[in-house]
Amino acid sequence: MLTRIYKEDKDALKEYLMSRTQDLSTDVLVTVSNIIQDVKENKDEACLKYTQQFDKVSLDTMEVSQEEWDAQILKCDDSFVEAMKLAKKNIEDFHKLQKQNGYLLQKEKGIYLGQRVLSLEAVGIYVPGGRAQYPSSVLMNALPAKIAGVQNVVMVTPPDKNGTIHPNIAYAAKLAGVDKIYKIGGAQAIAALAYGTQTIDRVDKIVGPGNIYVAAAKKLVYGTVDIDMIAGPSEILVVADEKANAEYVAADLLSQAEHDPMASAILLTTNEELLDLVNQELLKQSAVLPKKEIVEQSLKNYGKAIVCDSVEECISISNEIAPEHLELMIQNPMEHLQEVKNAGSIFLGYYTCESIGDYFGGTNHVLPTSGTARFSSALSVDSFIKKSSYLYYSKQAIEAYGKYIETIASEEHLQAHANAAKVRVK
Amino acid sequence: MLTRIYKEDKDALKEYLMSRTQDLSTDVLVTVSNIIQDVKENKDEACLKYTQQFDKVSLDTMEVSQEEWDAQILKCDDSFVEAMKLAKKNIEDFHKLQKQNGYLLQKEKGIYLGQRVLSLEAVGIYVPGGRAQYPSSVLMNALPAKIAGVQNVVMVTPPDKNGTIHPNIAYAAKLAGVDKIYKIGGAQAIAALAYGTQTIDRVDKIVGPGNIYVAAAKKLVYGTVDIDMIAGPSEILVVADEKANAEYVAADLLSQAEHDPMASAILLTTNEELLDLVNQELLKQSAVLPKKEIVEQSLKNYGKAIVCDSVEECISISNEIAPEHLELMIQNPMEHLQEVKNAGSIFLGYYTCESIGDYFGGTNHVLPTSGTARFSSALSVDSFIKKSSYLYYSKQAIEAYGKYIETIASEEHLQAHANAAKVRVK
Repeated sequence: MLTRIYKEDKDALKEYLMSRTQDLSTDVLVTVSNIIQDVKENKDEACLKYTQQFDKVSLDTMEVSQEEWDAQILKCDDSFVEAMKLAKKNIEDFHKLQKQNGYLLQKEKGIYLGQRVLSLEAVGIYVPGGRAQYPSSVLMNALPAKIAGVQNVVMVTPPDKNGTIHPNIAYAAKLAGVDKIYKIGGAQAIAALAYGTQTIDRVDKIVGPGNIYVAAAKKLVYGTVDIDMIAGPSEILVVADEKANAEYVAADLLSQAEHDPMASAILLTTNEELLDLVNQELLKQSAVLPKKEIVEQSLKNYGKAIVCDSVEECISISNEIAPEHLELMIQNPMEHLQEVKNAGSIFLGYYTCESIGDYFGGTNHVLPTSGTARFSSALSVDSFIKKSSYLYYSKQAIEAYGKYIETIASEEHLQAHANAAKVRVK
Repeated sequence: MLTRIYKEDKDALKEYLMSRTQDLSTDVLVTVSNIIQDVKENKDEACLKYTQQFDKVSLDTMEVSQEEWDAQILKCDDSFVEAMKLAKKNIEDFHKLQKQNGYLLQKEKGIYLGQRVLSLEAVGIYVPGGRAQYPSSVLMNALPAKIAGVQNVVMVTPPDKNGTIHPNIAYAAKLAGVDKIYKIGGAQAIAALAYGTQTIDRVDKIVGPGNIYVAAAKKLVYGTVDIDMIAGPSEILVVADEKANAEYVAADLLSQAEHDPMASAILLTTNEELLDLVNQELLKQSAVLPKKEIVEQSLKNYGKAIVCDSVEECISISNEIAPEHLELMIQNPMEHLQEVKNAGSIFLGYYTCESIGDYFGGTNHVLPTSGTARFSSALSVDSFIKKSSYLYYSKQAIEAYGKYIETIASEEHLQAHANAAKVRVK
């Protein structure tokens, strides 16, 4: 059931939603910091020790051999393989358009400058293990890296109790072009990727979701390597007009609520009656869900609704919340797209459920949460490139313009900066 | 004087350079955290109180009026104004080419998806005060934001002992199109920008250099707002071949060494004799520098040279160090540019001193330090935009493809995700 709140309370709602971002406890930070230090010093030996300790498996090597990889793939369902192949094509089609080019600017004789676009050399993808296997997450993280041109995309994932990896994960990795898989999880996996071991080469960037130990480890190694954002709880905000179908609205709210007791599901509507109908549907649909308890907790805490005067007002409130997922269940959604300022990903019209984007449509499902859509973006090809500028001045050019450099440098009291131009001009 | 080290010790050099990044002490973090909390609660009142306490000035308002702003500008030197105007033009020419466009992909009837590029709405630029005034930094931070389309670019800077701001800073701000200036510095300024006060509106992103309190405050508010990178000490790495001029090489090494006793100046050369000549020049040129003591400390600790067998080897070592500034003082530098994998900004040939880039050439001088050029980029128009994706499926489209979404969602044990497609297909 969604709790109705009033427009006047939208700031309180915003604060309440933001309060979900949990600080990492000192205990977790100390534990993780010790693991990182151990892996940095003792490398493979430490990795295998923690795998034994946390995953209860004794491995000879962390590397998944081609034979093991191929053998696991054979266990996948045909229907799953077919769906994943189509999803891959859609994700590639969308992300290929994100490729960027460098440029060269010739200003005048003897002066040129430009920007190069370079892919990162090595990227590590963390993939959670155990029962919660998310092959879609492998595609969403690995495909943009490969499109960016990253030569070395490696995946780390904790081994199951038989010392191997889930068939679906093995298949998704192969499909996405992952170069190597290592059976290691937790903070030890992040440390291995950041500093390197005998088996695992260090990478330039680590992406992918994980538990609180993984998140803490990513925070601690940031700077030594780059990381993606550390995602907060899932969020969906549905803007629904008079014609919106309550059954669809409820189904979509539930699709985020089932992620996590901290997930939020918010309805902004111009139709007061819709709220009652959605609440009836929520009861009916959630009753038969396997994750019923999670859904109930999530909706109780973070299921909210506001009735607004217009679609414009709904979108204006949504802009303040800056949701991860925004559904515009309205007529002519393209007419209103322009009004949306802050949202990770937007789903247009009555038929575009958010889960199309999670699995299949082609847009990325790694999105800014906790209001950070105000200033950040989905994972994309951009996440796996860097840009480097260059500048050329000929002898004649520095002779012509050196005096301006001397002037500004002198005003800033940086005489050696001025001299560097001066020695070339005299 | 540069200390010669051997190729075999390049890993040790890399570690040594990385060790300069200082952790923030608990004392600093606690002090800053208290200031932030105070500003969050008491807003303007707290801001004015800290300005009194730290800057020894009692202000009625933090806002710089148009009259005050214009009056300060009149005090600038004409030659400075002329140089800044030309610099602005060059910076704009280079950065305008970084503007990005969104795209729309029509996949088939009833399916389209795309990406929008939106500028941030409000950006705050921190500008240090006191004697160290850096008008070039105002241009480098504000111009890309304005080109990105940011409507509201505000500047914060501590007032001088007369309660006003430096003429050069006032002029640079006007030239760059800054919308408002507030007289406030330190952690209190960062807190005001992150949370807003009666006078200062909260922003989406804070950029610009500052002292250790400013850096700590930026770290602490990150997540509530975006921040730029927190810069480490300046770095220059010069690759010089047989024909390189020792006077120029020395002048350029000194231009970074004068920044900070922690700054690094590294020479990689194919010419053993050049090293002696450069060391002679360093002694000669540094003797007359106003910042002689800083230079001596910096060179003593972080002035190093390696003699290599070839330019290719020099660049290969440079790639491992990933310097902020890389000068290629070699013949045919464009032929070797391709070999450079990790460098913030590259200066080509014998005449392109790094200080052209600091002030005038047009490339940005806010660059990745401490080896982070391996995975990050200069400040650019990209720093002030966000991207948001959208997706549309018609009724027919979800009927055609819904089953694939159900398949993948079911494999991931997320039944509500599957249901969102299912209710629309039945």
